[in-house]
Amino acid sequence: MTRVDIAIIGSGPAGLEAALTAKNRNKTIQLFGSKDLSNKMQVIDHPITNYLGLPSVTGKEMAAAFTKQIEEANIEITEVKVTTVYAMGDYFNLQLSNGEFAEAETVILASGVVAGKPYPGENEFLGRGVSYCATCDAPLYKGKNVTVIGESSEEESEAAFLGEVCAHVNYIPLYKTETVFKHENITVIHEKPIEIQGVMKANTLVTDQNSYDTDCVFVLRAAQFPSQLVPGLAVDGNAVKVDREMRTNLPGLFAAGDIVGLPYQFIKSAGEGNIAAISAATYIDHKKRK
Amino acid sequence: MTRVDIAIIGSGPAGLEAALTAKNRNKTIQLFGSKDLSNKMQVIDHPITNYLGLPSVTGKEMAAAFTKQIEEANIEITEVKVTTVYAMGDYFNLQLSNGEFAEAETVILASGVVAGKPYPGENEFLGRGVSYCATCDAPLYKGKNVTVIGESSEEESEAAFLGEVCAHVNYIPLYKTETVFKHENITVIHEKPIEIQGVMKANTLVTDQNSYDTDCVFVLRAAQFPSQLVPGLAVDGNAVKVDREMRTNLPGLFAAGDIVGLPYQFIKSAGEGNIAAISAATYIDHKKRK
Repeated sequence: MTRVDIAIIGSGPAGLEAALTAKNRNKTIQLFGSKDLSNKMQVIDHPITNYLGLPSVTGKEMAAAFTKQIEEANIEITEVKVTTVYAMGDYFNLQLSNGEFAEAETVILASGVVAGKPYPGENEFLGRGVSYCATCDAPLYKGKNVTVIGESSEEESEAAFLGEVCAHVNYIPLYKTETVFKHENITVIHEKPIEIQGVMKANTLVTDQNSYDTDCVFVLRAAQFPSQLVPGLAVDGNAVKVDREMRTNLPGLFAAGDIVGLPYQFIKSAGEGNIAAISAATYIDHKKRK
Repeated sequence: MTRVDIAIIGSGPAGLEAALTAKNRNKTIQLFGSKDLSNKMQVIDHPITNYLGLPSVTGKEMAAAFTKQIEEANIEITEVKVTTVYAMGDYFNLQLSNGEFAEAETVILASGVVAGKPYPGENEFLGRGVSYCATCDAPLYKGKNVTVIGESSEEESEAAFLGEVCAHVNYIPLYKTETVFKHENITVIHEKPIEIQGVMKANTLVTDQNSYDTDCVFVLRAAQFPSQLVPGLAVDGNAVKVDREMRTNLPGLFAAGDIVGLPYQFIKSAGEGNIAAISAATYIDHKKRK
């Protein structure tokens, strides 16, 4: 496995600017995100009037301009979700939603802000009947009954995959949909998840209307809560704690953009991505000199 | 005198972005700077490849794009130097190089980084034979002998003005020039200033070759050292100390861009200008609610 200098998680302004700056510093990168760049950007249909350099663009126009610039700089986006980032001491191991791993000398978290909070029981039973990665953990639940909480329609293929491996899948979409799966063993349930219960491991999902026996609850969000994305990461609510150099509490791990807190502004995120990339490059150069 | 909500000192990316964002927040502003925006930007003739939103522009192209955007947003630049910012308690008083004053509820320092350090004796005798403002202090030296240290050719008109008021002016340019003044009482001296000496007040300028009696030394730099621009401002070397909200140690005073330290990058400055403007707007809104 090739170990890149800097893994960048997120393709909004913070991640894109970090990628441009890291390239300028001759660092190898892997940029995880979406070809759409950012949902938050795509849905803005009024003019954005305070991004210095792009006068009065809509979100789609901003995304188009950024995409063109990134392509011209030969920066590719890896369309895979990063499930967990493990600090290994002198490098990082990234668990991906396709079941693979990636390695990096340093990591920049730029995956945006996540609203809400974990379900009661979610943190308690994580790794024991609660999972964030269907592809990774499906083999553990072969022939069993599982539940999938899906935040967007992108998670439906994960549910379909689990349907092929598991005895039964309850799929709970958190978005509006009339999806019906071809698999007879997948039931779509339009209820609101409330709590994950269990004893040594999770065994029940409680909704606003019912209670379901289950061997595992797969919670598939568009983005992880920072503290779940990186075990050991210092946070303040859902915001990653950073200093003015965008350093987190974990050496070699940096963060930028909405994930570090207010104000939620595109140019602020870009500026922080720049600082994070320079800090990461400096960290690597310093380590090599040792 | 109209008191604006936010006085912004500096027309580089930090100052311009602060102005755009302050306008978005419905705040009145006065932006002090230059129609050239930034000398540092103007002289870059290779492509700038890591400003997200402006792919591969030269400094001049960047300045042209920013100028167009600022003009479209109806933001005007006041081409006057701010000599000193006085914190008056619940507002700020800005002394200008044209001898006038301006008032503001809050101030954002975005005037860039100043290289070097004050001359020995400069801080000691400031206000007692050392001045940063020819127009302001010329009347005090009517018929006297003064010295002007000029960092750029823009200061020649100040020297000429002093020539009309004072008995004699020694003009020491810190830049390459063959300027000869029409005024017979202005002598151009091509020597390097070393130290300002005096007893109760400054009375001597020492250069690398000579020692000159003088009643006042006017030190005219493109930008002031932060600690001299704002009495009482906390600094670390020539960098203004700020927190993650770009707040300085003085309530209502914010700073952004190169003036707060490394990295010296355009997009980093713009991002910080955005944060500073939002912090200033929040500070004003909070004060009004009291």
